[in-house]
Amino acid sequence: MLLRTDRDTLLAPLSIVCGVAPRRHALPVLSHALLEADGEHLALTASDLEIQLRSRRAVPTDTPFRLCLPARKLLDILRALPAGCELQLKRHGSQLLLLAAGSRFLLQALPADDFPLLEADADTAAPLRLEQGELKRKLGQILYALADNDIRPYLNALLLQLDGGELRLIASDGVRLAFQRYPLPAPQPGRTLLLPRKAALELAKLLGDRDAPVLLEPGARQLACAIGDTLLRCKLLDARAPDYLRLLPERHDCELTLPRLPLLEAVQRVAVLAHAKFRQLELTIRPGQLALRCRNADREEAEETLPTDWQGPPLDASFNLQYLQDVLTHVPAEHLRFGLGGDQRGMLVTNPDDPHFQYLAMPLRG
Amino acid sequence: MLLRTDRDTLLAPLSIVCGVAPRRHALPVLSHALLEADGEHLALTASDLEIQLRSRRAVPTDTPFRLCLPARKLLDILRALPAGCELQLKRHGSQLLLLAAGSRFLLQALPADDFPLLEADADTAAPLRLEQGELKRKLGQILYALADNDIRPYLNALLLQLDGGELRLIASDGVRLAFQRYPLPAPQPGRTLLLPRKAALELAKLLGDRDAPVLLEPGARQLACAIGDTLLRCKLLDARAPDYLRLLPERHDCELTLPRLPLLEAVQRVAVLAHAKFRQLELTIRPGQLALRCRNADREEAEETLPTDWQGPPLDASFNLQYLQDVLTHVPAEHLRFGLGGDQRGMLVTNPDDPHFQYLAMPLRG
Repeated sequence: MLLRTDRDTLLAPLSIVCGVAPRRHALPVLSHALLEADGEHLALTASDLEIQLRSRRAVPTDTPFRLCLPARKLLDILRALPAGCELQLKRHGSQLLLLAAGSRFLLQALPADDFPLLEADADTAAPLRLEQGELKRKLGQILYALADNDIRPYLNALLLQLDGGELRLIASDGVRLAFQRYPLPAPQPGRTLLLPRKAALELAKLLGDRDAPVLLEPGARQLACAIGDTLLRCKLLDARAPDYLRLLPERHDCELTLPRLPLLEAVQRVAVLAHAKFRQLELTIRPGQLALRCRNADREEAEETLPTDWQGPPLDASFNLQYLQDVLTHVPAEHLRFGLGGDQRGMLVTNPDDPHFQYLAMPLRG
Repeated sequence: MLLRTDRDTLLAPLSIVCGVAPRRHALPVLSHALLEADGEHLALTASDLEIQLRSRRAVPTDTPFRLCLPARKLLDILRALPAGCELQLKRHGSQLLLLAAGSRFLLQALPADDFPLLEADADTAAPLRLEQGELKRKLGQILYALADNDIRPYLNALLLQLDGGELRLIASDGVRLAFQRYPLPAPQPGRTLLLPRKAALELAKLLGDRDAPVLLEPGARQLACAIGDTLLRCKLLDARAPDYLRLLPERHDCELTLPRLPLLEAVQRVAVLAHAKFRQLELTIRPGQLALRCRNADREEAEETLPTDWQGPPLDASFNLQYLQDVLTHVPAEHLRFGLGGDQRGMLVTNPDDPHFQYLAMPLRG
């Protein structure tokens, strides 16, 4: 007998780590979860060689053991068993026998030593203690701006800049940039990390909405994130990101403050008749009025007009529809402020209620 | 001005018919909905040449008109407009102008005469008046057994047999058969119809849960179904189905009555370790006990045992897992009765609470 426990004690940590295990990989052990019992704790680990997720629970066992079990099959079996039911795990030759009332499962098991655990980073800085809910909200406001599979690797990664009294979080796909600042209680030594997209999304998923702490431990080649009983360890991208923040314009010809939801709804309506390929959104700013316009290849056209308090000179601009829709969707503010017609003719979006957020989208036409 | 109405009066019938309009078709007019106003009513029609769906509302208009508008674009615009908002439709050259407060849409319009309306069937029988909820429940218990894209066309169609005092509904994919009877208040002349899969699914979707009537008007080449303000007109399949009901076995070596949900959960658990290709489920019936077993290509194995009241001789059988899972999922009964080991060694599933339902699955191995 290896282990006697209830279904939920095993299901909870497995549900957390299982998503990291790749569905298909040349290394079959990666579709497995590593189970490790030291007598007092049971730890489950999954990995895709870039991201390693480990979740631990206090589970007393008679004898320590370590073995790898097929992660997704075990998850599906546990999910299909009744909540709270009692389980027994036994060795059966090179396989594992899982017993529950009326149920018997014989699963393929692999030796624990086959599992490619990530080695801990030697060169780590002091851990950074942040609030989970706050970090989750900030990541939610910027991660959509990351590139996916761009040939410039640094665009597929979230840039974390530790600089004095703040942690800067920057996501960019090369045409737009989303920026959040997390003020820190004490100044930190400067450090720059590039966290690959998949790891950044996994971190955002693991964070809870509450004010419980998350510990970030930045290393030379890894970032370790401790969230309750769970430890996320991610390889960092070894590249240099450009100095994005230099791009943020300082002055604008035109500033509009607009209610977010009515503007989002207007953008969604004109989007129906947007060009399927170019997705161009034309903005026409006139005293007291903003017009949004889309046209498609069938000569169809949609136009929405919204009242504004702008009384300055007229201004025309043209942006990718998605870039406006994304920021309106992900930043939960009552109003957003739009700065247009600056030096590079980009659109700077800020949140009057949150001085830490900035978003810059470059125009479709100069 | 063609029409002045509110958003919901146009959205409701368009939502009903729009699903029939194909997303891509060599005939561009099929992505359009036909709008017809006769002064008192507004009717919207969509078609894929096999199925035509028409929904009508009482909408007074000053002048009658007929034109075709892009169905899905109009649907997306209406959905994105605020509920209850007022609309105006105007002609604008060969296009249509849709106006709402602050919004202006210019849509491509096609002449109404381009729309390929299905001609009504000349040779129709008296309409059959059924209850929507009852027909929906019966269809839900059998439609999953239809084939999809089988080379034998009659397997891709629901068989409707009008015979004396009942309507028989039969779905089969050639290896299993699901059968429901709808008793009729008065005897009807005999008639056999093959309703193609897509039309049968569309009909089930349109039916409400209530006891409101649905009128079925069987023709020589079409079936017309009137559901409230909506008329579904489907081309019938011109083929001959085999005499399925002859296959239903009359006696069994073994009869088990089993609680449906516990059995479904047991099947779902062993399914995790089923062979990815063959999906074989082994049944082992012993006095007082039923065992379900699946094995996969990795030499993994799952077994579930359930108590039964069977005290006869032992019996082994083997079925496609999906065939048992489907009937357990779609027939909402407390218990189901399983007859095994008959003449052709198929499994006959019946519902003790519903004498009108029968389901036959043929074994994987003789």
